This record gives sequence, C-alpha cells and structure tokens, in this order.
Amino acid sequence: MDVTTPMVNGIDTDALRRLAGEIAEDPDRGRASFHVTTSWKGGTRSDTRVESWQLGGRAITKDFTLRADEPCELLGCGTAPNPQEMLLAAFNACLTVGYVAGCSLEGIRVRSLRIECDGMLDLRGFLGLSPDASPGYQALRLVVHLDADGTPEKLQAIHDRVMRTSPNRWSLAQPVPMEATLLLTGSGSGA
Amino acid sequence: MDVTTPMVNGIDTDALRRLAGEIAEDPDRGRASFHVTTSWKGGTRSDTRVESWQLGGRAITKDFTLRADEPCELLGCGTAPNPQEMLLAAFNACLTVGYVAGCSLEGIRVRSLRIECDGMLDLRGFLGLSPDASPGYQALRLVVHLDADGTPEKLQAIHDRVMRTSPNRWSLAQPVPMEATLLLTGSGSGA
Repeated sequence: MDVTTPMVNGIDTDALRRLAGEIAEDPDRGRASFHVTTSWKGGTRSDTRVESWQLGGRAITKDFTLRADEPCELLGCGTAPNPQEMLLAAFNACLTVGYVAGCSLEGIRVRSLRIECDGMLDLRGFLGLSPDASPGYQALRLVVHLDADGTPEKLQAIHDRVMRTSPNRWSLAQPVPMEATLLLTGSGSGA
Repeated sequence: MDVTTPMVNGIDTDALRRLAGEIAEDPDRGRASFHVTTSWKGGTRSDTRVESWQLGGRAITKDFTLRADEPCELLGCGTAPNPQEMLLAAFNACLTVGYVAGCSLEGIRVRSLRIECDGMLDLRGFLGLSPDASPGYQALRLVVHLDADGTPEKLQAIHDRVMRTSPNRWSLAQPVPMEATLLLTGSGSGA
C-alpha cells in the first residue's frame, strides 16, 4: 500500500492531515458545535431534526430527520429504533470513523469492519421502582471485527487509540456535565 | 382531564401501570437488552442494523437501519447525520419518552414538546493533537419547550423526575463501564 496515496479507504488523507495541521495551529478551528431539535409526534414517537452545525464558528447547513419510537412492549408503536438503540448506533458509528481514519492515516487498507454493541437496562430505574436500580446502561460490551492489511500489532495500536480518542466513547465513559432549562409555554406556563 | 382514561397522549396508561407492576414483582421482567451491529460502508459511512432486542429474556425481532456519515468538512460525504448528532438525538428522544410517560401517568395532556440540545467538541481530542483536549462533549445544554395542562409545579416535578430517571441521560451523565474486544479476521489476523 502506497502511504502517499491521498485516498485510502475512501478518506482523503491529505485533507485529513491538512485539517489536523490547521487545528493544531489554531485550536479555534477545531471547535465543532452540534445542535438538534426533537419534536414529540404522539405516544413515544419523536422526530429529531438536524439542520445546521458549526465548525470553527462557521455555520454549515444540513437536512436530516432521525425518527425514534419505543417498541409495542414498551408502550410504543414500534415504528422506529428506540432511543437506547440509537445511542448504541451513535457509539458504533463514531468508533467506525475512528478505526477507518486511523487505518487510512497509516496507509492500511480496510477490507471490512463490523462492530457489535450490547447493553442492558434495568427498567426499574426508568420506572422509578427502586432507588438502587440505575436507569442507564449498566455496561456496554463491544466486539469489533476488523479485516485490514496491517500487522496485528499495528491494528491493536489503532484499536487502543480509538478507545482513547473516540468522541462518543468518551461521552459515555466519562460523565458529561449538563444544563437543562424547562420552558413552559401555553396554558401550562400559568400565564 | 379524566385520570382514569387509559389512553393519554397516545400512551396506554393502564398497560404502563401493569408493566410497572409486573416488573416491581419480578425485576427480571424489567431486564431490557439492546443489540446493534454496525457495518462500515466506505469512507466515514456506516449502517447500523437493529434486528432484535430482549425483554425479560424474551427475544423480540426488529428491522431498522440507522445511517451515519461525517459532513464533507470532516472528510465524509455528508449523506447522513454524524455520530455526534445521533448521540444528541438519542438523548432527546429518550427524554421525550420520559416527559410524555410522566405526564400521561398523571393524566396531564401534552399539547407540544420540543427539546433542543447543543454540544461542542474540541477536535484536538479526536485528532490526538493535545492530551489536554477531551475528545467528547465538554457539556450538553438542553432547552425543553413544554406546552401541557399541568400546573407549573407539577410540570417542574415531572421535569426533575425525567432528569433522574432517563436512561440515556444517565448513560451520558454517569460513567458507563465498557468492555471491548478486537477480533482480527482475514489476512490482518496474521493467520
């Protein structure tokens, strides 16, 4: 594999190195802000709109809708993946980018990559039935199936780096500070 | 509002109370296991398949695909939401279920619910450019717009409960233990 080829695994490695160089020089260029708006659609259904994001202070438009619903067994209509499955998908999708970017920068061709993720909830937490039951995932278990050109040592090093640098892995493995504001509108506002 | 009406906001509140009663009696019935499989589709694209989940040890089939891609500015093709947006969508969708279930159980009619969520990444973390830069979200900021029948005090109490019991909020606000296994297949396995 010619490491100088810019396109590796569908990633423009020249552009990736250039982006990294620009951000190393001016960290403000590496500030990526994401924003979504979720609207309730009846029952347990919701649509989340993704309309813009910002990179280095510059707004960039998008146009996507993510649908979610609970299965019938959890009082929904089963019309879409549920929020817990969407969380696992977000985790896996982020790791996928990490492996492919990492391999591409080393000139390693990826033939296939498949990531399985499992997690279990104790619904007593969500239902408020037991103060001892955590509402969230007790643990997440990943199995990464990678078929790529590199040596096992090289691929293991890339795996270790992905585990350290994946944004969504970090957001799940570390506590993320949160700030929530409830705005009551209509008659519920007491107005 | 007649609190005894089983369908409130599209939620069968009788069924929800029944489910909670069954799980209170036998916590094993409240074990919900989720599983997704993500396949790399070239570049930064991936498809995540949701084919089954388990409730109380019983497997239930599903059939959904969640697509992800990075925007062009982050070396992708911009064909789908990116993993960070999907994470925010999963968070919001979970909170939506919490507000609607909470209001429904109290017989409170929800007219509209919209949740905005913002988060920022410092891409130096993902790019490994600085050990001081966290790869994940520094913080998440939520604004919940709720138009519902209840008193402000009642709705605030439901909000506080959602913040305590949302599974995906918990998974992001608390560290989730993880176990990852790398399986090398094909020539990369050194076989």
